[in-house]
Amino acid sequence: MRIKVGRVGLLLLLTTTGLYARADDPLPSWREDTSKRSIVNFVTRVTEQDGPDYVKPAQRIAVFDNDGTLWSEKPVYFQLQFAIDRVKQLASQHPEWKAEQPFQAALADDLDGLADTGEQGLLQLVMATHAEMTTDEFATTVKEWIRTARHPRFRRPYTELVYQPMLELLAYLRANGFKTYIVSGGGIEFMRVFAEEVYGVPPEQVIGSSITTKLELRNGTPVLTRLPVLDFMDDKEGKPVAINKFIGRRPIAAFGNSDGDLQMLQWTAAGEGARFCLLVRHTDAQREWAYDRNSHVGRLDKALDEATEEGWTVVDMMRDWEAIYPP
Amino acid sequence: MRIKVGRVGLLLLLTTTGLYARADDPLPSWREDTSKRSIVNFVTRVTEQDGPDYVKPAQRIAVFDNDGTLWSEKPVYFQLQFAIDRVKQLASQHPEWKAEQPFQAALADDLDGLADTGEQGLLQLVMATHAEMTTDEFATTVKEWIRTARHPRFRRPYTELVYQPMLELLAYLRANGFKTYIVSGGGIEFMRVFAEEVYGVPPEQVIGSSITTKLELRNGTPVLTRLPVLDFMDDKEGKPVAINKFIGRRPIAAFGNSDGDLQMLQWTAAGEGARFCLLVRHTDAQREWAYDRNSHVGRLDKALDEATEEGWTVVDMMRDWEAIYPP
Repeated sequence: MRIKVGRVGLLLLLTTTGLYARADDPLPSWREDTSKRSIVNFVTRVTEQDGPDYVKPAQRIAVFDNDGTLWSEKPVYFQLQFAIDRVKQLASQHPEWKAEQPFQAALADDLDGLADTGEQGLLQLVMATHAEMTTDEFATTVKEWIRTARHPRFRRPYTELVYQPMLELLAYLRANGFKTYIVSGGGIEFMRVFAEEVYGVPPEQVIGSSITTKLELRNGTPVLTRLPVLDFMDDKEGKPVAINKFIGRRPIAAFGNSDGDLQMLQWTAAGEGARFCLLVRHTDAQREWAYDRNSHVGRLDKALDEATEEGWTVVDMMRDWEAIYPP
Repeated sequence: MRIKVGRVGLLLLLTTTGLYARADDPLPSWREDTSKRSIVNFVTRVTEQDGPDYVKPAQRIAVFDNDGTLWSEKPVYFQLQFAIDRVKQLASQHPEWKAEQPFQAALADDLDGLADTGEQGLLQLVMATHAEMTTDEFATTVKEWIRTARHPRFRRPYTELVYQPMLELLAYLRANGFKTYIVSGGGIEFMRVFAEEVYGVPPEQVIGSSITTKLELRNGTPVLTRLPVLDFMDDKEGKPVAINKFIGRRPIAAFGNSDGDLQMLQWTAAGEGARFCLLVRHTDAQREWAYDRNSHVGRLDKALDEATEEGWTVVDMMRDWEAIYPP
């Protein structure tokens, strides 16, 4: 049987094939490039049942940093913006804040002044805005902020400033039997409010920094109260500690963007068998931000050197990503 | 069409039906009784898609205590026996232990003397046997103990002294879309060594007490070292705290056996929608042990009163369980 294909028919055929190819691509926002190729190669290797690098599904643990890896972190960490907005909300109950740091700086949107108060100042800001309420009350507060707050540059809800290519990557890994975890310096109970809806990552797969909670009875009902006491800082050396505590297995893939993720990537890479480490490098001032070695937030310096030495994948946002945010 | 069925044929039919019925029963070691009925009723209610009590699979979290709920805890907690055996192994390197409590009591198998050293003594015993090594080294030590140690009464490996009806219950819940967690006062890294093989519970679903770990470099390779410092005690009020931290959702079903589980059951029961709380009561001195209100290990007193008040399910081991341990 011979099939006659005219010019229009041929064009249609080609177009359709093109469409199918694109629909089949699990990572459409990743340009055909070395980063994308290295991801797909790794996933193919560990899922090929007869291959030398096969990894059983139960062992396919992938860990992702959040700030700067899954969503943006400029001009300040989004959770810090939440704290600043909350200080403004609570200011009428705290007239003394007008003359006290770090609150004065927060009320004036003075980010440099806030940075000058150092780690101690930031901790004080967090405790004044994240504690002295039940876990349920805190979740409600975060939900309300996410619903109403808008990013100063993009005028979109913060949860829309997540990286489309990373959303595709999370889904691609899960479709290949991976369990995807968030391991972030951000607050564990802050992220859990939106991680499932935004990233498809359920609460039990979100790991982060925490403050101490305490079981109490309120009118005979047990509640968990958040105390203004730091429980755990999930950054740098803390990330492998938290991974071991919460997951109890070593990940085979790790994704980060800053020196705060270095130990997590090293811990992942030090395991036996196929491993994958990736750094997101912020190179796109126009569509997002461009910063690395000299940035105060999300500094990428030592980890970048180590990536070069170890042959880790480094994503160049400008070059590798077709889109930054979801449409 | 008429089918003739003779006497033998009828007998065969009935027998076959009987066999099928048994093969279909997901809880064959549970006698047809109120406990079994209450379990099956609950699972049916929360999984019936059009029913008023339907719970989405993601929310089907079930938490299980370990000691006395999933495996035996007499004559002493099995992990304490591990510590005693380890003291004996290490004794030649510590001649001073012969004259020092709690080590002296441990070396002499003097359980009463050990109990007399109190919580402080037990903690000292744990630190001397569970710390000052890497997490990998600790796991190897536990694995070796499980392989070689035998229970003094039953002469079986400790991991065979798990309750057959509870193994069936874990599998039954998972088959109905539940995520099954262990939430135990026992050591998280101790239980993770065998929980997956014995209970089908993966490491990331095991929650327990912990000591502090620290990331260090050994010959350029990152390792986690176990420090002799208590990190978290996962008992009583600690259980809801740990559930909130590790899972981030409230369970809909909780299973325990002692007053140490009371807060976990209360926390579970206090949520909205269908809830299920169950206590295993040790009533079978012949096949296992009989103890409750006056036992030092696994005391069941306040929780038993509350179970009666709240209508929680109380398993009577002697009456409700056809088998105690796997054959």
